[in-house]
Amino acid sequence: MRGKKITVIGCGLLLMVVMTLSGAGAENFSSYVDEDGSISKPLDFRTDWVHLGSWIVPSENDKQYGFHDVYASQATIEAYQRTGQFPDGAAVIREIRSVETSTLSGGQTSWAGDVESWYLMIKDREERFEDHPSWGQGWGWARFMPDDSGQNLVEDYRQDCLGCHVPARKTDFVNIQGYPTLR
Amino acid sequence: MRGKKITVIGCGLLLMVVMTLSGAGAENFSSYVDEDGSISKPLDFRTDWVHLGSWIVPSENDKQYGFHDVYASQATIEAYQRTGQFPDGAAVIREIRSVETSTLSGGQTSWAGDVESWYLMIKDREERFEDHPSWGQGWGWARFMPDDSGQNLVEDYRQDCLGCHVPARKTDFVNIQGYPTLR
Repeated sequence: MRGKKITVIGCGLLLMVVMTLSGAGAENFSSYVDEDGSISKPLDFRTDWVHLGSWIVPSENDKQYGFHDVYASQATIEAYQRTGQFPDGAAVIREIRSVETSTLSGGQTSWAGDVESWYLMIKDREERFEDHPSWGQGWGWARFMPDDSGQNLVEDYRQDCLGCHVPARKTDFVNIQGYPTLR
Repeated sequence: MRGKKITVIGCGLLLMVVMTLSGAGAENFSSYVDEDGSISKPLDFRTDWVHLGSWIVPSENDKQYGFHDVYASQATIEAYQRTGQFPDGAAVIREIRSVETSTLSGGQTSWAGDVESWYLMIKDREERFEDHPSWGQGWGWARFMPDDSGQNLVEDYRQDCLGCHVPARKTDFVNIQGYPTLR
């Protein structure tokens, strides 16, 4: 009876060690990344994640036109507030919507209309996917459209993403000045 | 032994009944309202609550100038999504910040600067504080400044709040068109 107990405890410990080790590898570091580095879109982030902040580019002629709402998980925010850095596996999603504008009782007001697209960044502190065109500079980069294809449309993060993110290189490519929750 | 068990279960049931009844009374319906109807400001809502949506009134000459971030608890959102109504005790907070504007890589961009004030609404389905000047139309109304006084600055909700909220009367005085999480 006692031998059986020790075996069960031993197996439990072994399982914990194996799980910890595999968690640090390429396979399991994010729920939104498969073992080949393909990135998928989180669901329910508007209700389950924390709002970092919003910003607006009101002119349709500008590259980043839209009302931008940005979210990360509670664990990511807590780690950032403690260390000043995004932890490995951190996911930051930006939902871009059309800009609706009207003169209401409080003045000319703009708010977020329909979804146009999402941008997602996944923090990778171990350079897991070195030759993958969606990975580099310590992040995985993804873009999704509301067509339900679920496909990451970033073909080359250097061309598709860095143009706007390089100016924020000092803050790990995230424009934290726009995010009161991180300040 | 069996009698003891029944006594414990009986006490447990009694406690549950007492807790349920006291929860429905005037004293305990919201953590942010005392028994006299005084309203206090929630803490940590940016990290612990759900983002309903944001909107902006960019001109300093307009009454509601600022970048407005709006939040409610997860329980409030779930109840609203299920029933289409704000549940008794629901709290909706609006954080108003200055508008920062700059031409960035993606175009002319505006985001939320420093906190200027907060507006808080507490849903009251039982008209608990009939003669209180901060309560009416099914809500408690509050405004706070970042001076740490913690005092509700609404002296008469009719004069201080309804002007902007009456146009949203059909949606229980909340401009839900601006809140993607509720749509």
